[in-house]
Amino acid sequence: MGRWEPDARGRLVKAAMELFEERGYARTTVADIAERAGLTERTFFRHFADKREVLFSGSEDLEAVILAAVAQAPDGAAPFDVVLAAMEAAGAMIQERRAMPFVRARWAIVTEHAEVRERELIKMASLGAALTAALRARRVPEPAASLAAAAGIAAFTVGFERWVAAKRPGDLAAHVRAAFDALEAVTSRAPARAPRA
Amino acid sequence: MGRWEPDARGRLVKAAMELFEERGYARTTVADIAERAGLTERTFFRHFADKREVLFSGSEDLEAVILAAVAQAPDGAAPFDVVLAAMEAAGAMIQERRAMPFVRARWAIVTEHAEVRERELIKMASLGAALTAALRARRVPEPAASLAAAAGIAAFTVGFERWVAAKRPGDLAAHVRAAFDALEAVTSRAPARAPRA
Repeated sequence: MGRWEPDARGRLVKAAMELFEERGYARTTVADIAERAGLTERTFFRHFADKREVLFSGSEDLEAVILAAVAQAPDGAAPFDVVLAAMEAAGAMIQERRAMPFVRARWAIVTEHAEVRERELIKMASLGAALTAALRARRVPEPAASLAAAAGIAAFTVGFERWVAAKRPGDLAAHVRAAFDALEAVTSRAPARAPRA
Repeated sequence: MGRWEPDARGRLVKAAMELFEERGYARTTVADIAERAGLTERTFFRHFADKREVLFSGSEDLEAVILAAVAQAPDGAAPFDVVLAAMEAAGAMIQERRAMPFVRARWAIVTEHAEVRERELIKMASLGAALTAALRARRVPEPAASLAAAAGIAAFTVGFERWVAAKRPGDLAAHVRAAFDALEAVTSRAPARAPRA
């Protein structure tokens, strides 16, 4: 590592988001981002593998929060409740760290650029795999562990998308809970399907 | 299009799978595949955008089968039952078209090579989006349409993985149904959780 750059990572993310907004994602280069942040390209590449990765700054922390929530869940908790607690914790972290304009600008780039969408899918699949492993470590058998993790990631994604699109977004965790409830309702093929109290 | 090459697509897939097995995926080039198939590289690129795409030959047909099954589902069917019927049809098509050694060799490449895994994730996300749109066209409201599609794709994937790994695989459709049942059980947070008859 070269000389210490105070919050180089944060400055690079901020510079990148400004430039993506001003010029568009496709027309912004790593050199532009480094220049705007007052740093060198070399410093950029010490923090991020490529331009796309700037949009996924914090994804390791997200995984850590999810795994911590699984570890903290009570012993006898049902697997899907454990996953819900983990996804609520993930939602709370995102909302605490990022202002809504940042989240919306980032999401617009994810949905509009195939290469960024790809990376998003990979990150979510990787979170799902980590979550599955954490459930197995709690002795949740297969296929329940894989299914609870994959269904939970799907519900989180739907809750997140509705939160980002909402006029008055409110709490992300509330949208996530609502998506979990809706998922339970839609997957229930039992004859009696009375709404839950 | 150049001169007609009888089943050029099928010959390219067969040649590619042979070479992937003999030399490994990473060490096989498009030129190798074309040569083994007795065709030109130009012909290869008329059929496939790149080497990865050979492993996804037939994915348009898979989408067509899924959408046809949704269209044929009875009017009042519950969304998740519609999705199950579509995923069973997809399973039946895969099993009808491909012998198990082909399926297993292909799946080993998907899981071992990050770039192929990426493409697989994108194809599955794209199937999920098509399925969501088909459910919406049946007047399934949101978020039920997105959730039923995403959960169905997740269950299909788990059923498929178990089928591929099984010593006596049997019917893929049966594995898919079992995964749907297991998903329903794991997402059910209702107090009474007696196993279904």
